Amino acid sequence: MSNPAIKPSLPKGVRDFLPAQMIQRQYVIGKIRTIFERYGYQPMETPSLERLRILSGKYGDEGERLIFKLLRRGTGLEELLHGRDTFVVDSYGQLVDEALRYDLTVPLSRVVAMHQNEITLPFKRYQIQPVWRADRPQKGRYREFYQCDVDAVGSGSMLVDAETVAIVNDVLTELGFTNFLIRLNNRNLLNGILASIGLDPARSAPVFIAIDKLEKIGVDGVSRELIGCGLEAGEAQKLLDILGVQGSPQSVLDEVASLCGDDENVRAGREELQDVLTALAQMGVPAANFKLDLYLVRGLGYYTGLIQESIVLEPKIGSLTGGGRYDKLIGMFLGRDVPACGVSFGIERIIDVMVETGMLPKTGTNTQVLVSIFDQTTQSASVALAMKLREAGIRTELAYESTKLKKQFSLADKKRIPFVAVIGPEEVAEGRVTLKNMQTGEQKRVSEAEAVKLLLDTAV
Amino acid sequence: MSNPAIKPSLPKGVRDFLPAQMIQRQYVIGKIRTIFERYGYQPMETPSLERLRILSGKYGDEGERLIFKLLRRGTGLEELLHGRDTFVVDSYGQLVDEALRYDLTVPLSRVVAMHQNEITLPFKRYQIQPVWRADRPQKGRYREFYQCDVDAVGSGSMLVDAETVAIVNDVLTELGFTNFLIRLNNRNLLNGILASIGLDPARSAPVFIAIDKLEKIGVDGVSRELIGCGLEAGEAQKLLDILGVQGSPQSVLDEVASLCGDDENVRAGREELQDVLTALAQMGVPAANFKLDLYLVRGLGYYTGLIQESIVLEPKIGSLTGGGRYDKLIGMFLGRDVPACGVSFGIERIIDVMVETGMLPKTGTNTQVLVSIFDQTTQSASVALAMKLREAGIRTELAYESTKLKKQFSLADKKRIPFVAVIGPEEVAEGRVTLKNMQTGEQKRVSEAEAVKLLLDTAV
Repeated sequence: MSNPAIKPSLPKGVRDFLPAQMIQRQYVIGKIRTIFERYGYQPMETPSLERLRILSGKYGDEGERLIFKLLRRGTGLEELLHGRDTFVVDSYGQLVDEALRYDLTVPLSRVVAMHQNEITLPFKRYQIQPVWRADRPQKGRYREFYQCDVDAVGSGSMLVDAETVAIVNDVLTELGFTNFLIRLNNRNLLNGILASIGLDPARSAPVFIAIDKLEKIGVDGVSRELIGCGLEAGEAQKLLDILGVQGSPQSVLDEVASLCGDDENVRAGREELQDVLTALAQMGVPAANFKLDLYLVRGLGYYTGLIQESIVLEPKIGSLTGGGRYDKLIGMFLGRDVPACGVSFGIERIIDVMVETGMLPKTGTNTQVLVSIFDQTTQSASVALAMKLREAGIRTELAYESTKLKKQFSLADKKRIPFVAVIGPEEVAEGRVTLKNMQTGEQKRVSEAEAVKLLLDTAV
Repeated sequence: MSNPAIKPSLPKGVRDFLPAQMIQRQYVIGKIRTIFERYGYQPMETPSLERLRILSGKYGDEGERLIFKLLRRGTGLEELLHGRDTFVVDSYGQLVDEALRYDLTVPLSRVVAMHQNEITLPFKRYQIQPVWRADRPQKGRYREFYQCDVDAVGSGSMLVDAETVAIVNDVLTELGFTNFLIRLNNRNLLNGILASIGLDPARSAPVFIAIDKLEKIGVDGVSRELIGCGLEAGEAQKLLDILGVQGSPQSVLDEVASLCGDDENVRAGREELQDVLTALAQMGVPAANFKLDLYLVRGLGYYTGLIQESIVLEPKIGSLTGGGRYDKLIGMFLGRDVPACGVSFGIERIIDVMVETGMLPKTGTNTQVLVSIFDQTTQSASVALAMKLREAGIRTELAYESTKLKKQFSLADKKRIPFVAVIGPEEVAEGRVTLKNMQTGEQKRVSEAEAVKLLLDTAV
């Protein structure tokens, strides 16, 4: 008896994943990984710790504040008090030079620059690792959560852009989502549309923010915000008319061309989207699963071409994936631009939604059988059977105690292990084993070889 | 062209894992996971961030200093200056309340206490996640590295202890190690041996440290250290005589019994080891793969029964795994003792050794085929073929650019992709595809179905 106990608790906004949850998470992540690799993408990992100067200035003012910063080791009160201008001082007046990974895109860009001689372009990598954000925790928002990104670096071909859309389509389809839509747009097209109504590019940032709010505040709300941005009522109306064009991607592209006239950005955006649409058809991505949605903006400033986002239509749960082309970001580290394009899967949300809607059955365990121990005299037979089953690749728990069989059955029940193997003195004498199906209660006395076959068959 | 570029670099002691390395790491980790699950252990993860008070006081003075501590957010210079006694102040005079995961055992203990109503005992979990230590980086020692632990909580049965030894034996064997030895010992036995030479238990800690140095300083060195601990020459000699007993585990146990007389700890340790040896025989663990080594101590203070460590005999590379029984640790969080036993795999060292000794071939990629694009007129056929191969589960990279075929072959070469599929106008007309084996240079013109079969067959 130890005393007094240390009260067990966790920092706010972080979670334990117990086995039942982990099995669900591994199922989803495993499916996604398989699809990434099927498209020729390779695994990569970067460290949790990055130099602060690598991360700062990349995520906007809001993001900057959410970076988890680490104190330079050996920086004590004295140095704080006397100050040293070589240190970075954050908004709390703290000296920092390292930080926790905030996303997977900036580390990818750093890797491409840092390991350029070890990397063959196009560099196709996926990365599935936790990131940290010092955000106020709330339902579905954590301080530590996994991100899952797939990117191709080094090619400006629209085949890359189309491939990332095809991957999203494959992942959502194979995870069992039936009612999803991938929204597509293009930053060049958006810039061209703004230029065509005569808007100075320097004024476009707040206009983008206003457009992005359509889902939240409706067309009238966006209209008011646009006027708040300094657009005249006529300009706002003209913009909303263009953005609201509906129909097949091809017809939307054609109508935008006729509404916007001969703007060079419009032309570039249209050509890029045209190539993406052609490739999507060649790839056999069902036309019903994507649309061209001119209202799509995607917050991040670094996108330069195609942008995409996938949503589930019913129930409304926000976006599951998002991404696009960013041809200028890697240049920040490399000194010359390298085209890049990718998509990020919101796996925390995907898993939450799949659990909530029953798309992920909670099996509780992946163990297939509990080998019970009847008594001390039969322990040796039970141990030998457990080892034989394991050799056959069957996930087998061995009872550690020869308690009453009823108690061992109840243990299997609680752990949701589907079968219990019993070897009592009779079974030992016969060289057989009784296999109890915990779901049906059915018991069968079979040879060891038959037990192996039965357990392998029911595994699937 | 962006300028000036941000110089890409990493903090000291952390690493990027590029795809070629990741594929090797995933192979090793995947094999280990499969074996853990075969023994009925389930995956678990805990957050990187823990409250500092959960971690502190668990790792000794040395460990304590290596914990990566995070500042309480919102704690600025002002609060530092005015002080608040509710904060923890570390050795640098910094206010901290969170820290990065230092190992996987303390988090497991916290989880068992915190989630006791969600957990069924015996709780069998494995955990493979990075930990952080603010150590001075050197070859083979990193500030962020993966640990890989398998533990069973809630049973005092020696079947658990034996199972962890069997798992080590399976993992090392299946990874391809042929020349390893699992050293076993027992803390009760060690305590009893010290008692039998008349040593006060309060004086045993430095004696254990001296014994643990055998590998480094030899028997004479240990003897000198023991005398330095205050043992008389006769006592030291008697201790070394007992610890040096050689032979089969059974004969060592018997000889220790006759040398030490009727000490209660010796008896407890002998009985435990006897049960472990019986179970190891029942489990079929080859006797040549383990030995009873009375010099084995294992540093950590929390072990209470069996201790184990595996070493490779040639080349000498230190220990690959280590573990034991710790029946008192979980009580620190739960308020009542819960028996526990486990083993930790040094996967960083295991991977390093396997790479250095050529046990892990560097394949570079797991992509099976590059589908080239002959020219714009055949792009559609290439894209369709790539999608068909992917549907068949073949890991397929699609060329993004229709450059000269020679250049596309060279790309496959650089990426070490073993096959290139070519669809030129002739192949399109025939509805066939030319498959080039990049290793042999051999080319075959086959139907798509034959190409699928050929690629699936060569995958293994």
